[in-house]
Amino acid sequence: MNTVETSEKINVVITPEELLKHWEGHRGLTRRLIEVFPEKEFFEHSIGGMRPAAQLIQEMMDVSTGGVREMAGGDSGEIAGHGVKATSIAEALDNWDKDTAELFENLAKIPVEKFHERILSFGQYEGTIWGNIFYFLDNEIHHRAQAYVYLRSLGIEPPAFWDRY
Amino acid sequence: MNTVETSEKINVVITPEELLKHWEGHRGLTRRLIEVFPEKEFFEHSIGGMRPAAQLIQEMMDVSTGGVREMAGGDSGEIAGHGVKATSIAEALDNWDKDTAELFENLAKIPVEKFHERILSFGQYEGTIWGNIFYFLDNEIHHRAQAYVYLRSLGIEPPAFWDRY
Repeated sequence: MNTVETSEKINVVITPEELLKHWEGHRGLTRRLIEVFPEKEFFEHSIGGMRPAAQLIQEMMDVSTGGVREMAGGDSGEIAGHGVKATSIAEALDNWDKDTAELFENLAKIPVEKFHERILSFGQYEGTIWGNIFYFLDNEIHHRAQAYVYLRSLGIEPPAFWDRY
Repeated sequence: MNTVETSEKINVVITPEELLKHWEGHRGLTRRLIEVFPEKEFFEHSIGGMRPAAQLIQEMMDVSTGGVREMAGGDSGEIAGHGVKATSIAEALDNWDKDTAELFENLAKIPVEKFHERILSFGQYEGTIWGNIFYFLDNEIHHRAQAYVYLRSLGIEPPAFWDRY
Protein backbone atom coordinates (compact mmCIF):
# COMPACT_ATOMS: atom_id res chain seq x y z
CA MET A 1 0.00 0.00 0.00
CA ASN A 2 1.50 3.33 -0.99
CA THR A 3 1.05 6.70 0.68
CA VAL A 4 -1.29 8.03 -1.98
CA GLU A 5 -3.64 5.11 -1.50
CA THR A 6 -3.65 5.62 2.25
CA SER A 7 -4.38 9.31 1.93
CA GLU A 8 -7.21 8.63 -0.55
CA LYS A 9 -8.90 6.48 2.05
CA ILE A 10 -9.05 9.21 4.65
CA ASN A 11 -12.04 11.10 3.29
CA VAL A 12 -14.22 8.40 1.80
CA VAL A 13 -16.69 5.86 3.14
CA ILE A 14 -15.24 3.07 1.01
CA THR A 15 -12.84 2.92 -1.94
CA PRO A 16 -13.71 1.01 -5.14
CA GLU A 17 -11.01 -1.55 -4.20
CA GLU A 18 -12.55 -2.04 -0.77
CA LEU A 19 -16.00 -2.45 -2.31
CA LEU A 20 -14.57 -5.14 -4.58
CA LYS A 21 -12.91 -6.95 -1.64
CA HIS A 22 -16.11 -6.68 0.40
CA TRP A 23 -18.12 -8.24 -2.43
CA GLU A 24 -15.44 -10.93 -2.93
CA GLY A 25 -15.93 -11.90 0.72
CA HIS A 26 -19.66 -12.30 0.10
CA ARG A 27 -19.04 -14.33 -3.05
CA GLY A 28 -16.76 -16.67 -1.09
CA LEU A 29 -19.49 -17.21 1.48
CA THR A 30 -22.09 -17.94 -1.21
CA ARG A 31 -19.70 -20.45 -2.78
CA ARG A 32 -19.45 -22.32 0.52
CA LEU A 33 -23.24 -22.29 0.78
CA ILE A 34 -23.52 -23.94 -2.67
CA GLU A 35 -20.97 -26.56 -1.59
CA VAL A 36 -22.93 -27.75 1.43
CA PHE A 37 -26.23 -28.29 -0.43
CA PRO A 38 -27.22 -31.89 -1.15
CA GLU A 39 -27.25 -32.43 -4.95
CA LYS A 40 -30.98 -33.02 -5.41
CA GLU A 41 -32.14 -30.38 -2.94
CA PHE A 42 -30.03 -27.67 -4.53
CA PHE A 43 -32.16 -27.95 -7.65
CA GLU A 44 -35.50 -28.92 -6.14
CA HIS A 45 -35.98 -27.95 -2.50
CA SER A 46 -38.22 -24.96 -1.98
CA ILE A 47 -40.38 -23.34 0.70
CA GLY A 48 -43.69 -21.55 0.15
CA GLY A 49 -43.51 -21.74 -3.64
CA MET A 50 -40.19 -19.90 -3.82
CA ARG A 51 -37.51 -20.72 -6.36
CA PRO A 52 -35.00 -23.45 -5.42
CA ALA A 53 -31.45 -22.41 -4.46
CA ALA A 54 -30.09 -23.18 -7.95
CA GLN A 55 -32.44 -20.60 -9.47
CA LEU A 56 -31.65 -17.99 -6.81
CA ILE A 57 -27.93 -18.51 -7.46
CA GLN A 58 -28.47 -18.25 -11.23
CA GLU A 59 -30.29 -14.96 -10.69
CA MET A 60 -27.40 -13.55 -8.67
CA MET A 61 -25.03 -14.33 -11.51
CA ASP A 62 -27.31 -12.93 -14.22
CA VAL A 63 -28.13 -9.75 -12.31
CA SER A 64 -24.76 -8.85 -10.81
CA THR A 65 -22.42 -9.97 -13.55
CA GLY A 66 -24.69 -8.85 -16.38
CA GLY A 67 -25.35 -5.53 -14.69
CA VAL A 68 -21.70 -4.80 -13.97
CA ARG A 69 -20.66 -5.98 -17.44
CA GLU A 70 -23.05 -3.36 -18.85
CA MET A 71 -21.54 -0.67 -16.60
CA ALA A 72 -18.11 -1.58 -17.95
CA GLY A 73 -19.34 -1.10 -21.52
CA GLY A 74 -20.48 -4.63 -22.42
CA ASP A 75 -23.85 -6.22 -22.98
CA SER A 76 -25.95 -7.02 -19.89
CA GLY A 77 -27.39 -10.21 -21.32
CA GLU A 78 -30.65 -11.50 -19.91
CA ILE A 79 -31.87 -12.44 -16.44
CA ALA A 80 -32.80 -16.11 -16.64
CA GLY A 81 -35.50 -15.91 -13.97
CA HIS A 82 -36.47 -19.54 -13.59
CA GLY A 83 -33.76 -20.91 -15.86
CA VAL A 84 -30.68 -22.65 -14.48
CA LYS A 85 -27.61 -23.34 -16.57
CA ALA A 86 -25.95 -25.89 -14.26
CA THR A 87 -27.15 -29.49 -13.95
CA SER A 88 -24.94 -30.47 -10.99
CA ILE A 89 -23.42 -28.73 -7.98
CA ALA A 90 -19.95 -29.22 -9.46
CA GLU A 91 -21.09 -27.41 -12.59
CA ALA A 92 -22.79 -24.70 -10.53
CA LEU A 93 -19.53 -24.11 -8.65
CA ASP A 94 -17.61 -23.96 -11.91
CA ASN A 95 -20.11 -21.45 -13.33
CA TRP A 96 -19.95 -19.48 -10.07
CA ASP A 97 -16.15 -19.22 -10.24
CA LYS A 98 -16.12 -18.09 -13.87
CA ASP A 99 -18.95 -15.66 -13.20
CA THR A 100 -17.20 -14.24 -10.14
CA ALA A 101 -13.97 -13.73 -12.07
CA GLU A 102 -15.83 -11.88 -14.82
CA LEU A 103 -17.78 -9.80 -12.29
CA PHE A 104 -14.67 -8.47 -10.59
CA GLU A 105 -12.75 -8.02 -13.82
CA ASN A 106 -15.52 -5.70 -14.99
CA LEU A 107 -16.06 -4.03 -11.63
CA ALA A 108 -12.38 -3.05 -11.58
CA LYS A 109 -12.85 -1.35 -14.96
CA ILE A 110 -15.39 1.17 -13.65
CA PRO A 111 -13.54 4.34 -12.64
CA VAL A 112 -14.64 5.92 -9.38
CA GLU A 113 -15.54 9.10 -11.30
CA LYS A 114 -18.39 7.14 -12.91
CA PHE A 115 -20.10 5.96 -9.72
CA HIS A 116 -22.48 8.92 -9.66
CA GLU A 117 -23.43 8.73 -13.32
CA ARG A 118 -26.88 7.39 -14.10
CA ILE A 119 -27.55 4.15 -15.96
CA LEU A 120 -30.56 2.19 -17.19
CA SER A 121 -29.47 -1.34 -16.25
CA PHE A 122 -30.95 -4.15 -18.35
CA GLY A 123 -32.89 -1.49 -20.25
CA GLN A 124 -35.25 -1.06 -17.30
CA TYR A 125 -33.62 -0.41 -13.90
CA GLU A 126 -32.76 3.26 -13.67
CA GLY A 127 -30.34 4.51 -11.05
CA THR A 128 -26.82 5.64 -10.31
CA ILE A 129 -23.95 3.24 -10.94
CA TRP A 130 -23.31 3.05 -7.18
CA GLY A 131 -26.99 2.57 -6.39
CA ASN A 132 -27.40 -0.26 -8.88
CA ILE A 133 -24.15 -1.92 -7.75
CA PHE A 134 -25.38 -1.87 -4.15
CA TYR A 135 -28.71 -3.21 -5.34
CA PHE A 136 -26.98 -6.16 -7.02
CA LEU A 137 -24.91 -6.98 -3.92
CA ASP A 138 -27.91 -6.58 -1.59
CA ASN A 139 -29.88 -8.87 -3.88
CA GLU A 140 -27.17 -11.54 -3.50
CA ILE A 141 -27.24 -11.24 0.31
CA HIS A 142 -31.05 -11.41 0.24
CA HIS A 143 -31.33 -14.55 -1.88
CA ARG A 144 -28.40 -16.30 -0.20
CA ALA A 145 -30.13 -15.78 3.16
CA GLN A 146 -33.22 -17.48 1.77
CA ALA A 147 -31.06 -20.45 0.79
CA TYR A 148 -29.80 -20.44 4.39
CA VAL A 149 -33.37 -21.15 5.50
CA TYR A 150 -33.65 -23.96 2.93
CA LEU A 151 -30.52 -25.56 4.44
CA ARG A 152 -31.82 -25.15 8.00
CA SER A 153 -35.14 -26.70 6.98
CA LEU A 154 -33.14 -29.70 5.70
CA GLY A 155 -31.29 -29.94 9.02
CA ILE A 156 -28.03 -28.75 7.46
CA GLU A 157 -25.79 -26.15 9.13
CA PRO A 158 -25.05 -23.30 6.69
CA PRO A 159 -21.62 -21.61 6.59
CA ALA A 160 -21.19 -18.85 9.22
CA PHE A 161 -22.54 -15.52 7.95
CA TRP A 162 -19.69 -13.54 9.50
CA ASP A 163 -16.98 -15.66 7.87
CA ARG A 164 -16.04 -13.94 4.59
CA TYR A 165 -12.82 -14.89 2.93
CA MET B 1 -27.87 20.41 -3.21
CA ASN B 2 -25.01 22.88 -3.42
CA THR B 3 -22.03 22.82 -5.77
CA VAL B 4 -19.62 21.63 -3.12
CA GLU B 5 -21.74 18.60 -2.37
CA THR B 6 -22.00 17.77 -6.06
CA SER B 7 -18.28 18.04 -6.58
CA GLU B 8 -17.59 15.87 -3.52
CA LYS B 9 -19.62 13.12 -5.12
CA ILE B 10 -17.55 12.96 -8.26
CA ASN B 11 -14.65 10.94 -6.88
CA VAL B 12 -16.25 8.65 -4.34
CA VAL B 13 -18.19 5.39 -4.43
CA ILE B 14 -20.79 6.66 -1.97
CA THR B 15 -21.03 9.64 0.36
CA PRO B 16 -21.94 9.23 4.07
CA GLU B 17 -25.28 10.93 3.32
CA GLU B 18 -25.99 8.47 0.52
CA LEU B 19 -25.08 5.54 2.76
CA LEU B 20 -27.56 6.85 5.32
CA LYS B 21 -30.31 7.23 2.70
CA HIS B 22 -29.55 3.76 1.34
CA TRP B 23 -29.87 2.25 4.82
CA GLU B 24 -33.07 4.28 5.46
CA GLY B 25 -34.57 2.64 2.37
CA HIS B 26 -33.74 -0.79 3.80
CA ARG B 27 -35.21 0.15 7.19
CA GLY B 28 -38.45 1.23 5.51
CA LEU B 29 -38.68 -2.12 3.75
CA THR B 30 -38.08 -4.03 7.00
CA ARG B 31 -40.80 -1.97 8.66
CA ARG B 32 -43.29 -3.03 5.98
CA LEU B 33 -42.23 -6.63 6.49
CA ILE B 34 -43.00 -6.39 10.23
CA GLU B 35 -46.41 -4.87 9.39
CA VAL B 36 -47.57 -7.79 7.24
CA PHE B 37 -46.76 -10.51 9.81
CA PRO B 38 -49.69 -12.08 11.64
CA GLU B 39 -49.44 -11.25 15.35
CA LYS B 40 -48.83 -14.76 16.69
CA GLU B 41 -46.50 -15.90 13.90
CA PHE B 42 -44.27 -12.85 14.27
CA PHE B 43 -43.30 -14.10 17.73
CA GLU B 44 -43.55 -17.86 17.22
CA HIS B 45 -43.22 -19.03 13.62
CA SER B 46 -39.88 -20.58 12.79
CA ILE B 47 -38.26 -22.93 10.26
CA GLY B 48 -35.53 -25.47 10.98
CA GLY B 49 -35.02 -24.36 14.58
CA MET B 50 -34.22 -20.78 13.60
CA ARG B 51 -35.25 -17.78 15.68
CA PRO B 52 -38.71 -16.30 15.01
CA ALA B 53 -38.94 -12.99 13.12
CA ALA B 54 -39.37 -10.99 16.35
CA GLN B 55 -35.97 -12.20 17.56
CA LEU B 56 -34.29 -11.55 14.21
CA ILE B 57 -35.70 -8.01 14.22
CA GLN B 58 -34.56 -7.46 17.81
CA GLU B 59 -31.05 -8.55 16.81
CA MET B 60 -30.96 -6.04 13.95
CA MET B 61 -31.81 -3.26 16.39
CA ASP B 62 -29.30 -4.36 19.02
CA VAL B 63 -26.45 -4.91 16.54
CA SER B 64 -26.90 -1.92 14.22
CA THR B 65 -28.06 0.72 16.63
CA GLY B 66 -25.78 -0.41 19.48
CA GLY B 67 -22.81 -0.70 17.13
CA VAL B 68 -23.34 2.70 15.53
CA ARG B 69 -24.04 4.31 18.92
CA GLU B 70 -20.62 3.05 20.03
CA MET B 71 -18.99 4.50 16.89
CA ALA B 72 -20.55 7.85 17.72
CA GLY B 73 -19.04 7.74 21.22
CA GLY B 74 -21.84 6.10 23.23
CA ASP B 75 -22.23 2.71 24.85
CA SER B 76 -23.02 -0.25 22.56
CA GLY B 77 -25.30 -1.96 25.05
CA GLU B 78 -25.85 -5.68 24.70
CA ILE B 79 -27.10 -7.94 21.90
CA ALA B 80 -30.23 -9.61 23.26
CA GLY B 81 -29.78 -12.81 21.27
CA HIS B 82 -32.99 -14.63 22.02
CA GLY B 83 -34.61 -11.80 23.98
CA VAL B 84 -37.40 -9.69 22.49
CA LYS B 85 -38.52 -6.43 24.03
CA ALA B 86 -41.83 -6.08 22.19
CA THR B 87 -44.93 -8.10 23.06
CA SER B 88 -47.07 -7.05 20.08
CA ILE B 89 -46.47 -6.00 16.49
CA ALA B 90 -47.63 -2.47 17.34
CA GLU B 91 -44.98 -2.31 20.05
CA ALA B 92 -42.36 -3.83 17.73
CA LEU B 93 -43.12 -1.11 15.15
CA ASP B 94 -42.87 1.57 17.80
CA ASN B 95 -39.51 0.17 18.98
CA TRP B 96 -38.38 -0.06 15.36
CA ASP B 97 -39.19 3.60 14.70
CA LYS B 98 -37.40 4.83 17.82
CA ASP B 99 -34.46 2.56 17.11
CA THR B 100 -34.25 3.74 13.49
CA ALA B 101 -34.31 7.39 14.54
CA GLU B 102 -31.49 6.80 17.02
CA LEU B 103 -29.49 4.77 14.47
CA PHE B 104 -29.46 7.56 11.90
CA GLU B 105 -28.95 10.31 14.45
CA ASN B 106 -25.74 8.54 15.50
CA LEU B 107 -24.70 7.55 11.98
CA ALA B 108 -24.84 11.22 10.96
CA LYS B 109 -22.43 12.04 13.79
CA ILE B 110 -19.61 9.90 12.40
CA PRO B 111 -17.37 12.11 10.26
CA VAL B 112 -16.21 10.59 6.97
CA GLU B 113 -12.59 10.98 8.15
CA LYS B 114 -13.30 8.27 10.74
CA PHE B 115 -14.56 5.58 8.37
CA HIS B 116 -11.11 4.02 8.01
CA GLU B 117 -10.29 4.02 11.71
CA ARG B 118 -10.40 0.68 13.49
CA ILE B 119 -12.87 -0.20 16.22
CA LEU B 120 -13.60 -3.15 18.51
CA SER B 121 -17.40 -3.18 18.33
CA PHE B 122 -19.20 -4.67 21.34
CA GLY B 123 -15.77 -5.38 22.82
CA GLN B 124 -15.27 -8.26 20.38
CA TYR B 125 -15.82 -7.46 16.69
CA GLU B 126 -12.67 -5.87 15.35
CA GLY B 127 -12.71 -4.01 12.04
CA THR B 128 -12.81 -0.65 10.36
CA ILE B 129 -15.74 1.66 11.00
CA TRP B 130 -16.87 1.25 7.38
CA GLY B 131 -16.41 -2.53 7.50
CA ASN B 132 -18.46 -2.92 10.66
CA ILE B 133 -21.17 -0.55 9.39
CA PHE B 134 -21.49 -2.62 6.21
CA TYR B 135 -21.56 -5.76 8.36
CA PHE B 136 -24.48 -4.37 10.37
CA LEU B 137 -26.46 -3.44 7.26
CA ASP B 138 -25.69 -6.76 5.54
CA ASN B 139 -26.82 -8.53 8.71
CA GLU B 140 -30.17 -6.72 8.49
CA ILE B 141 -30.63 -7.70 4.83
CA HIS B 142 -29.68 -11.30 5.71
CA HIS B 143 -32.12 -11.73 8.58
CA ARG B 144 -34.94 -9.84 6.88
CA ALA B 145 -34.63 -12.21 3.91
CA GLN B 146 -35.06 -15.13 6.28
CA ALA B 147 -38.26 -13.54 7.57
CA TYR B 148 -39.34 -13.30 3.89
CA VAL B 149 -39.19 -17.09 3.76
CA TYR B 150 -41.24 -17.33 6.97
CA LEU B 151 -43.93 -15.17 5.34
CA ARG B 152 -43.89 -17.22 2.13
CA SER B 153 -44.18 -20.42 4.15
CA LEU B 154 -47.30 -18.91 5.75
CA GLY B 155 -48.72 -18.10 2.33
CA ILE B 156 -48.23 -14.35 2.82
CA GLU B 157 -46.77 -12.09 0.12
CA PRO B 158 -43.82 -10.09 1.53
CA PRO B 159 -43.21 -6.47 0.49
CA ALA B 160 -41.26 -6.12 -2.79
CA PHE B 161 -37.50 -6.28 -2.19
CA TRP B 162 -36.78 -3.56 -4.73
CA ASP B 163 -39.21 -1.09 -3.18
CA ARG B 164 -37.22 1.04 -0.74
CA TYR B 165 -38.70 4.27 0.44
